[in-house]
Amino acid sequence: MSAEIICVGTELLLGDILNTNAQFLAQQLASLGIPHYYQSTVGDNLERLQQVIEIASKRASILIFTGGLGPTPDDLTTEAIANFFNTPLVERPEIIADIAQKFASIGRKMTPNNRKQALLPEGAEVLPNPSGTAPGMIWQPRPGLTILTFPGVPSELKRMWQETAVPFLKSQGWGKEIIYSRMMRFRGIGESALAEKVAPLLDLTNPTVAPYASLGEVRLRVSTKASSQADAIASIEPVAQQIRDIAGLDYYGSDDDTLASVVGRLLREVGETVSVAESCTGGGLGAMLTTVAGSSDYFVGGVIAYDNRVKISLLGVNREDLEQFGAVSHPVAKQMAAGVQKQLGTNWGLSITGIAGPGGGTQTKPVGLVYIGIAAPDGTAQSVEYRLGAMRDRESVRSIAAANALDLLRRRLLTRKNKKL
Amino acid sequence: MSAEIICVGTELLLGDILNTNAQFLAQQLASLGIPHYYQSTVGDNLERLQQVIEIASKRASILIFTGGLGPTPDDLTTEAIANFFNTPLVERPEIIADIAQKFASIGRKMTPNNRKQALLPEGAEVLPNPSGTAPGMIWQPRPGLTILTFPGVPSELKRMWQETAVPFLKSQGWGKEIIYSRMMRFRGIGESALAEKVAPLLDLTNPTVAPYASLGEVRLRVSTKASSQADAIASIEPVAQQIRDIAGLDYYGSDDDTLASVVGRLLREVGETVSVAESCTGGGLGAMLTTVAGSSDYFVGGVIAYDNRVKISLLGVNREDLEQFGAVSHPVAKQMAAGVQKQLGTNWGLSITGIAGPGGGTQTKPVGLVYIGIAAPDGTAQSVEYRLGAMRDRESVRSIAAANALDLLRRRLLTRKNKKL
Repeated sequence: MSAEIICVGTELLLGDILNTNAQFLAQQLASLGIPHYYQSTVGDNLERLQQVIEIASKRASILIFTGGLGPTPDDLTTEAIANFFNTPLVERPEIIADIAQKFASIGRKMTPNNRKQALLPEGAEVLPNPSGTAPGMIWQPRPGLTILTFPGVPSELKRMWQETAVPFLKSQGWGKEIIYSRMMRFRGIGESALAEKVAPLLDLTNPTVAPYASLGEVRLRVSTKASSQADAIASIEPVAQQIRDIAGLDYYGSDDDTLASVVGRLLREVGETVSVAESCTGGGLGAMLTTVAGSSDYFVGGVIAYDNRVKISLLGVNREDLEQFGAVSHPVAKQMAAGVQKQLGTNWGLSITGIAGPGGGTQTKPVGLVYIGIAAPDGTAQSVEYRLGAMRDRESVRSIAAANALDLLRRRLLTRKNKKL
Repeated sequence: MSAEIICVGTELLLGDILNTNAQFLAQQLASLGIPHYYQSTVGDNLERLQQVIEIASKRASILIFTGGLGPTPDDLTTEAIANFFNTPLVERPEIIADIAQKFASIGRKMTPNNRKQALLPEGAEVLPNPSGTAPGMIWQPRPGLTILTFPGVPSELKRMWQETAVPFLKSQGWGKEIIYSRMMRFRGIGESALAEKVAPLLDLTNPTVAPYASLGEVRLRVSTKASSQADAIASIEPVAQQIRDIAGLDYYGSDDDTLASVVGRLLREVGETVSVAESCTGGGLGAMLTTVAGSSDYFVGGVIAYDNRVKISLLGVNREDLEQFGAVSHPVAKQMAAGVQKQLGTNWGLSITGIAGPGGGTQTKPVGLVYIGIAAPDGTAQSVEYRLGAMRDRESVRSIAAANALDLLRRRLLTRKNKKL
């Protein structure tokens, strides 16, 4: 009993898009404890699709397809599956009605080619797509073989997976022995440094601890197999506690926590507000803070001071300091933070000024040089210098800068909260 | 004659890492004009690896492996290949010497498990790895079948591909005929509507035209096989021109063009500047505009007016209008745009106010309702209502809203440019 992932789309074979669906589904199968030994990718071609189905249906008992469900003639997944199992396609009126209603809700009219998405093999169940027009299906074409299809659009697939496929698979008895993981997140420490600090834990066999690194962030995945979530947590928690003790303030959260959600929680706890003043990030820090629903409770707003005139007019940055020290400097970062704090009447002011590149760097102020200013409720302002490295691209520098600003605020809020308690 | 990509690694099946190697290799094969119909992913398991080799060696004439070349016992790719073709593994002294020298250069001693990486099937050529210890191989186990192996580390694979595999494949006669594509980008039209408008072109065989959809954007990929880039462009351009004529203003750019880069180009052409006033996007519009290096030439800055007090204090939005019509309304969007235009002294002002969700929606103002305001150089301000649909998640609503704002400005700038000419 195992599952196999089949990704359909010529765009994958041409390298036009990155196959993030395969990773998502692989993680999901692992968390449900469903064995998974093969993944295949094939283009929008009926014959080759059927060949892949033939091979996979011999190896696995659950086939999971992504892609090729859309309204255009090159979307062939459903047709290939139905053909392979010699089953006619039947138009489902409930799908037509759903698609028509979705088009109406955005003020558009359903075009005739959308009818194609309403065709499913006889006997297949609709796997509803709440965020798009192409539904998937759940179908048992023969005993011992289950087929699930999903569109290729990652956000649609994820929602369909979580809302319908997971309950279905659990109803089939999967997910009893679960692989349970906690992803612990760290900021302000490198992968090898963290790995060295927690070295003895990396040799554990149950739970296991594995390090991962991504843009400016390190993670430790603590995993165990267990028959219930409670058992899993009981196995994981002592190790997680050891890791938290070792990492101290560099640990910021787990699983779905983000720097923005953690900072938001802390601001709520201390009952304080924040505003932002951004130069090189152009709004990215505000955008990051407001990824959290309900962030209006503590995020008031900000000033995007891309041009120096805005730094002067809206943030009250001193013109002479701008000329003497340059826009990318400690004094300007501090004044930006204090300026937005005052202008918007918030407890905290957070600012970013830096050289995102690729141009604009000099010997003394290279690409990747970023100053983050923080104005505190006690009326003081400080600035921290970061050298994010000339090897990083513009978007990496900008996104690490915004995250570092949040991390700076997080550390200050933690200290403040502990003082208040 | 076709190639097949086989990615080896249990970490791929667990979803621990994203398979960027498959995309890189797919792009490379396309640019060399090497047909490529299947990709497989399999874990570090000798038997299953051999099964995949059996299937792939029947379908393709070039097998490209990534992963499973390292020094640890779970690295089995080379062994599986040699076993499948009944060929003994032979230790290569030149590889041992190379690995020992690499360890010496960083002041370390080669550990015994590294010897494993020096084993290659009899008759195989070494595919050198200048940036790591695990070399690959180029091997013809039987006439008409070529095997290339690469480590899974993306940077090592890329360098080995470019320095050795590409010259080898070209020496075999590949790369004479290239596949050349143009990705044409559209905004403000759905996939099915565009597909219907260009329906006859979707049946072309050379060049081919294929539609793709992603978040709020539709693309058409126009592809051709040709012996030179000039020939390819000559074949593609007439079709691209037809598409541009059909799509009109809904076509915004091709290939690496983004809405932000296109808007930036237009602002430069007309010599005008823009500022932004953002509510629900929280800075995302400014962040999008400033993804473009050099955007400081036309982007001055903005105000993140998340809280209504900021809309009043910094943007001069009328308090009574806020109370009467609500923050998400035509009058407020217009006043935000006009307010930031005036406050920052720019030619254009662009504003966004909306309900990003998941909470905050009402019967009359549902999640996904967004007003985009635009204040023009002639002193007028207008606002456009978008219903992005309650089925979309918070981040989708925010990112589509920001992109729609750029698209609105793009259309106005195009009209303005044509008037000026």
